[in-house]
Amino acid sequence: MSRVITLTTDFGPDSPYVAQMKGVILGIHPAANIVDVTHSIRPQNVQQGAIVLRDVTRFFPAGTIHVAVVDPGVGTDRQIVYAEIAGGHYLAPDNGLLSLLTREVQPRQLVAVTNRVYFRDEISHTFHGRDIFAPVAAHLSLGVDPALLGPAMDKLVSLSWPEPKPLDDGVEGEIVDVDHFGNLMTNIAEQSLASLPVPRQRWEIQVAGRVIVGLSRTYGERSADEVIALVGSSGYLEIAQVGGNAVQQLAARVGDAVRVQWPSG
Amino acid sequence: MSRVITLTTDFGPDSPYVAQMKGVILGIHPAANIVDVTHSIRPQNVQQGAIVLRDVTRFFPAGTIHVAVVDPGVGTDRQIVYAEIAGGHYLAPDNGLLSLLTREVQPRQLVAVTNRVYFRDEISHTFHGRDIFAPVAAHLSLGVDPALLGPAMDKLVSLSWPEPKPLDDGVEGEIVDVDHFGNLMTNIAEQSLASLPVPRQRWEIQVAGRVIVGLSRTYGERSADEVIALVGSSGYLEIAQVGGNAVQQLAARVGDAVRVQWPSG
Amino acid sequence: MSRVITLTTDFGPDSPYVAQMKGVILGIHPAANIVDVTHSIRPQNVQQGAIVLRDVTRFFPAGTIHVAVVDPGVGTDRQIVYAEIAGGHYLAPDNGLLSLLTREVQPRQLVAVTNRVYFRDEISHTFHGRDIFAPVAAHLSLGVDPALLGPAMDKLVSLSWPEPKPLDDGVEGEIVDVDHFGNLMTNIAEQSLASLPVPRQRWEIQVAGRVIVGLSRTYGERSADEVIALVGSSGYLEIAQVGGNAVQQLAARVGDAVRVQWPSG
Repeated sequence: MSRVITLTTDFGPDSPYVAQMKGVILGIHPAANIVDVTHSIRPQNVQQGAIVLRDVTRFFPAGTIHVAVVDPGVGTDRQIVYAEIAGGHYLAPDNGLLSLLTREVQPRQLVAVTNRVYFRDEISHTFHGRDIFAPVAAHLSLGVDPALLGPAMDKLVSLSWPEPKPLDDGVEGEIVDVDHFGNLMTNIAEQSLASLPVPRQRWEIQVAGRVIVGLSRTYGERSADEVIALVGSSGYLEIAQVGGNAVQQLAARVGDAVRVQWPSG
Repeated sequence: MSRVITLTTDFGPDSPYVAQMKGVILGIHPAANIVDVTHSIRPQNVQQGAIVLRDVTRFFPAGTIHVAVVDPGVGTDRQIVYAEIAGGHYLAPDNGLLSLLTREVQPRQLVAVTNRVYFRDEISHTFHGRDIFAPVAAHLSLGVDPALLGPAMDKLVSLSWPEPKPLDDGVEGEIVDVDHFGNLMTNIAEQSLASLPVPRQRWEIQVAGRVIVGLSRTYGERSADEVIALVGSSGYLEIAQVGGNAVQQLAARVGDAVRVQWPSG
Repeated sequence: MSRVITLTTDFGPDSPYVAQMKGVILGIHPAANIVDVTHSIRPQNVQQGAIVLRDVTRFFPAGTIHVAVVDPGVGTDRQIVYAEIAGGHYLAPDNGLLSLLTREVQPRQLVAVTNRVYFRDEISHTFHGRDIFAPVAAHLSLGVDPALLGPAMDKLVSLSWPEPKPLDDGVEGEIVDVDHFGNLMTNIAEQSLASLPVPRQRWEIQVAGRVIVGLSRTYGERSADEVIALVGSSGYLEIAQVGGNAVQQLAARVGDAVRVQWPSG
């Protein structure tokens, strides 16, 4: 296992709670290399956390330890889980956070994290990130065998995830996230568009009462302020405004429908 | 001393000023491991900085160097101080920032930081973080003896801090901070509650015109939107809203009174 | 070249896109030391990015690799450039981002970054930060000769930059940026003020309909709420409010004129 440990939480950017986790990790493994993925997951928004983990962690080298704490059930009887998925080592509450990572890959190992030997001595009821996740991650990065963390598990809790629906003349999905630029991220994967029988330039993309004709390749090839559709860097259909902010321009929201259709007639 | 250097400032999240400090540190000690505690202390809010230092730095390993720059008096005759407190090595303006750390522990060594040998050659009047704190921290992490930084000092400037008041039938404290989730942090420590003669389930917590009955153990054990009181992960009484934002819900503010009482009659 | 790689982008604080870049870098060079300069450049604001690079990167040790991605032209035919400037190694889109760094220093080497050997295998049209900048920086930090990145170039694209204008009785510049404290940063360098024939205490600084008399040395020497002018830590004239927020107090904006004059008569 590598000495790289990533952190993904909803503790807020620049959070002292995150610093507490880093202190605990460095106390156990002084040479750990801790990398922030993001701490700006909207509070308790497991779906957004799952999207970020799916889109970001695969760019880290195999062996990286990924700690994810979006954990509305902290202190209740929800399980904490270790999972090896596609070469990455994940620690997360078992609440669906890992379920977009395991849609196409089976986890190689699943363990219920229960062995208090690897926890802090005192465990608060409200901050398992510091008292359980951080020390367990540090011990893993020192080479502790994941099988020692607790009993094996069979399956993870699954997130209810909006699947895109095939239409007679296209696909209907929805907005699942909004990025810093105001770009709208959808659940429509590039592959699902590959099967549409007409060329990309003729597709009609409907979102928030607007119709966009044709898919762009990048932001800079249309004129300023134009609302465009393109395949974003994570491989999903995305709506953007050139030099602007699509979410403001369209007054769109997470959950709004997005249709890709070919023109009738 | 360790190669870990933490930074706590009011420079704002993601601040280029912080990056300047990191550049200076790495120029002197390329193997330093710099960890951000937070840079979101409200501008010039020494009390908030003191709370964060108290709650976060004790989770770092002994030998860590903690740099704190919340410094409204920069460039005036306020002193810069080195203090060893409970195994941590602190650099801060002597304005009360360290005074919550030293309420229960005496500093082992106090030095007025005056030796320009360890400063940058040019010292701006407005940015001692970059020109004094950063290079001094880097030299400490390389093993410079703190006694070389300047003359010994006797005592630190003390922050005026709101002490909780005992009542005939309870304790009165106040809100001293608000976290990213909108949870209200108080100055009422768990220990001071241990002496109340009735069980926790019967306490009445009054805040912002609201009465909360009983202390919860964690967020997830009450129903959504309920306003609850619990002992937070730093050991102080905290007011939260389950799945919500207590500071917005209650229109509360730092400084508002919080009373814990047992029911009369 | 050093193992320190800095990142300056407009991806937003705490951005998962930045984390993707870090993952790619660590996959190629596990011992790279990645430092965030800032990711809060206003979206696509090349001028603000150029100011931050000028003010921050010179504090890093020689040999540091500085990656800057403020890149409205991503995916179009804009060039990506490697430049060695004053001992630093820069990677940036050739859109003016580096042009404040090269106003007084000639770059020692300029290379058009075209060699796909050092890119990721798949290159998205919208995220060269992850697919080109990150892997190229990682290879440079491993010791790859910059000459291998592509053909030599002659000159960089230059940013249109507002030059201060000499007046009969002073200098006129403008506000070019606002920092986290609400301080107004101008384009008037300390050197250009050195030539004014009357002492600093008599200068009149006009900004946003307000006249400030005399230059302060630091924030703490005037009384609370006073609007002051001083030379900031980067060597430029700056307008601040003691214990307050000048940009709110003055309702000023980037682009507003700032005049430094000596009193007539």
